[in-house]
Amino acid sequence: MTCTTTPDLDRIAEELTAILGPQGVLTAPGEPYDRDSSPFTAAPDIVALPETTEQVSRIVRLASRLGFALIPRGAGTGTAGGCLPLSGGVVISLERMKRIITLDTRSLYAHVEAGVITGELRDAAAGQGLFFPPDPASLDTSTIGGNVATNAGGPACVKYGVMRDYVLGVEAVMPDGEVIQAGVRTRKGVVGYDMAHLLTGSEGTLGIITSVYLKLIPLPPATVGLAAVFPSLPDAMRTVAAVLGRGHLPSAIEFLDHKCLGLVGDKLPFSVEDKSASLLIIELDGRTEAITPEIDMVAAICTEHGATHLMPGGTRKERDTIWNVRREVSTRIREHAARSFSEDVVVPIGSIASFIAEVPDFENRFGLDIFAFGHAGDGNIHLILTVPRAARPDTQAPRLEDGIEAVARRVLELGGTISGEHGVGEAKKHLLPLEIAPASLRLQRGIKQLFDPCNIMNPGKVFP
Amino acid sequence: MTCTTTPDLDRIAEELTAILGPQGVLTAPGEPYDRDSSPFTAAPDIVALPETTEQVSRIVRLASRLGFALIPRGAGTGTAGGCLPLSGGVVISLERMKRIITLDTRSLYAHVEAGVITGELRDAAAGQGLFFPPDPASLDTSTIGGNVATNAGGPACVKYGVMRDYVLGVEAVMPDGEVIQAGVRTRKGVVGYDMAHLLTGSEGTLGIITSVYLKLIPLPPATVGLAAVFPSLPDAMRTVAAVLGRGHLPSAIEFLDHKCLGLVGDKLPFSVEDKSASLLIIELDGRTEAITPEIDMVAAICTEHGATHLMPGGTRKERDTIWNVRREVSTRIREHAARSFSEDVVVPIGSIASFIAEVPDFENRFGLDIFAFGHAGDGNIHLILTVPRAARPDTQAPRLEDGIEAVARRVLELGGTISGEHGVGEAKKHLLPLEIAPASLRLQRGIKQLFDPCNIMNPGKVFP
Repeated sequence: MTCTTTPDLDRIAEELTAILGPQGVLTAPGEPYDRDSSPFTAAPDIVALPETTEQVSRIVRLASRLGFALIPRGAGTGTAGGCLPLSGGVVISLERMKRIITLDTRSLYAHVEAGVITGELRDAAAGQGLFFPPDPASLDTSTIGGNVATNAGGPACVKYGVMRDYVLGVEAVMPDGEVIQAGVRTRKGVVGYDMAHLLTGSEGTLGIITSVYLKLIPLPPATVGLAAVFPSLPDAMRTVAAVLGRGHLPSAIEFLDHKCLGLVGDKLPFSVEDKSASLLIIELDGRTEAITPEIDMVAAICTEHGATHLMPGGTRKERDTIWNVRREVSTRIREHAARSFSEDVVVPIGSIASFIAEVPDFENRFGLDIFAFGHAGDGNIHLILTVPRAARPDTQAPRLEDGIEAVARRVLELGGTISGEHGVGEAKKHLLPLEIAPASLRLQRGIKQLFDPCNIMNPGKVFP
Repeated sequence: MTCTTTPDLDRIAEELTAILGPQGVLTAPGEPYDRDSSPFTAAPDIVALPETTEQVSRIVRLASRLGFALIPRGAGTGTAGGCLPLSGGVVISLERMKRIITLDTRSLYAHVEAGVITGELRDAAAGQGLFFPPDPASLDTSTIGGNVATNAGGPACVKYGVMRDYVLGVEAVMPDGEVIQAGVRTRKGVVGYDMAHLLTGSEGTLGIITSVYLKLIPLPPATVGLAAVFPSLPDAMRTVAAVLGRGHLPSAIEFLDHKCLGLVGDKLPFSVEDKSASLLIIELDGRTEAITPEIDMVAAICTEHGATHLMPGGTRKERDTIWNVRREVSTRIREHAARSFSEDVVVPIGSIASFIAEVPDFENRFGLDIFAFGHAGDGNIHLILTVPRAARPDTQAPRLEDGIEAVARRVLELGGTISGEHGVGEAKKHLLPLEIAPASLRLQRGIKQLFDPCNIMNPGKVFP
């Protein structure tokens, strides 16, 4: 097929206006469309704001006919630059497609448009006694479409899995403008290739997700938790192994390393003197009469493994206090750093402690301050590599990019992955070949070429 | 690229022997390689029995060079004919690749070869306090490779999902002989396209799965259950809705319709007079002190919804009694039928009762006896369409194939799928276009062509 390109922005804007009306086209867009939660910025030429799948299809056909790049965008909370027009083009924001089309309490699924805020779906489901478990940190602002496009995860993964595990089916506009229904709306289905999960995590490079069928489950009636301080991270991780090994399946197991704990120690209701102390946050959900005794058993396991302080999390207020400690970490790190990069590497759970024991070595080699916290129940570590505001006099000049690559290489040696829930986008595409071998990369590029022969769909992302 | 074909079986056998030795090649194979659990049979020209991924790779390169079809086979328990050489070719049986390579109790995953029996992995995991939930009926004979290739499910789906939800990563030999590592071995990962889940459910048409990384979870310490007889299937299904709606998440919810119950009524410890009575089997797993009171609550919900008989399932022996009733159904149906077809359609859970209410109409229109049982918690219905041994005098001549197609069309109208866990294989490929629209089918065929340009990998399956 022949691919064209039109650099004529006036004509593109005019034809988009014919589809969307003047309210649906921004021709001098600035904030927020020029940024996401990554370090990158790029102003779009034009922003298109469709309200229906049919409009999305017409926009894609236009892009295909005239030859311009389309960059799908949810709420711009991504941390990898995936929704930014780094090589120019039209940003297609799904923000106006925010209907919860179906919330089926008998068949336990929801059908929602891509622009629905994930937390709003979660609340709507809870209002009907149902549960939508995926809980990325950006829950209250990010969209279902973006979460599916990046296969987002969160603390609930240890018990409930990630977004992919809740995607039953996907409606998407493919690069030729065709609307496809991929997957099913039932809990099982194996008819043809799994197109719904191929689109999940494809970061807008294969098609534009316009609506999603999502699995819902019965709402656990209650949640309880606790936070525990341990003398060291290895103590904390031995506790995690013991909790899981004795048949408990928490709905969250989060950790803060000693450096993070040092930053937010003042938020704790007690003082922690030990500079190597680390924190675990554990939650259980289920029926009150089941989890009330169970959290006591978990607390006993913590004590048995050397916990020096326990914070109860039996009430909503107590749980909020605990999570506020966890949430404060990112803010404090940002205050501390001149420049930083937020990793979301994953290592096998059993290797978390030994991997984090190597962090001081990375700090020294690359002149960085590195903070580690994250999901102890699934190995997904938020490793924040920072260039300190005051350079450390005892080390060489900071080399952030080299540090990022060294961490990636080490994670892969341990059997991990370079991104657990953020995706590749722009930020990690140079690292992709470290993880994906040539034979697989060739097939993946082949799929991209097959679906999007003129490379109009989020071009330049994911693959180097 | 140029594709060749070699009809010279002697040469193929000779070259295979050079790779596998004489013990690894069967040149006059009969049972069991000529059949699976479908109505189809086809004798392979040759059976190859590799023991390593490297041998599989060499066989695939040979097939590619000489041009012959390769049909991957697990244990031959499939019900769709997917592993049969219906257009000739070499069956490549993974039965000798049966090592559990890793069972990592700290990082909660297993790495197993494709030929491992699923039940053996389940037992090995349980021995270490871990749980591998997927439980197809063929658990004790089918293989992980076959289960992944068909994305198998089972009763546990309602709480635990299907095979896909446990596949972290896949090692596969692609049609060019390259070995790829798809996916990860951790619980999260979003780096490039989701090749692991594209291979899952692809029924051996894109590559040969040689080993799989599987998620394990903590073993629930106990399981309890009950069976309850209801005056009608709608009563039973209202009970299912109430159980889920009140925050209970059973590890199995199975049903038998009145015709199935009629066949196995003598296996029950009480007599059921009501000809329209239906049976529910419900199980809960978790900590003993949690599920013992909870099963009483579930029993109370059953009684509240009109249950006329309750069978307790608190002990292993009682649970076995209950499941023996369920298992006996298939045997009795086979005895009853001259010819039958086992459907595994899925309808939204909320539509199960109304769909099954239409069964008598299908029976009359097509002169069939139809039995319904299956997974009430996920909508996956085993609808056994049978040609009775004694044709019903009041109806027209049996038309099995027409009945199958009519059921498929109706299921799709209800928002369901034509296969929940068996796959398409040979049996349903003529029905595939009813479910998959042309735009999606074109992309799926494109993926097949991209991966397997000479169509050597299980040719003729899945796509019509």
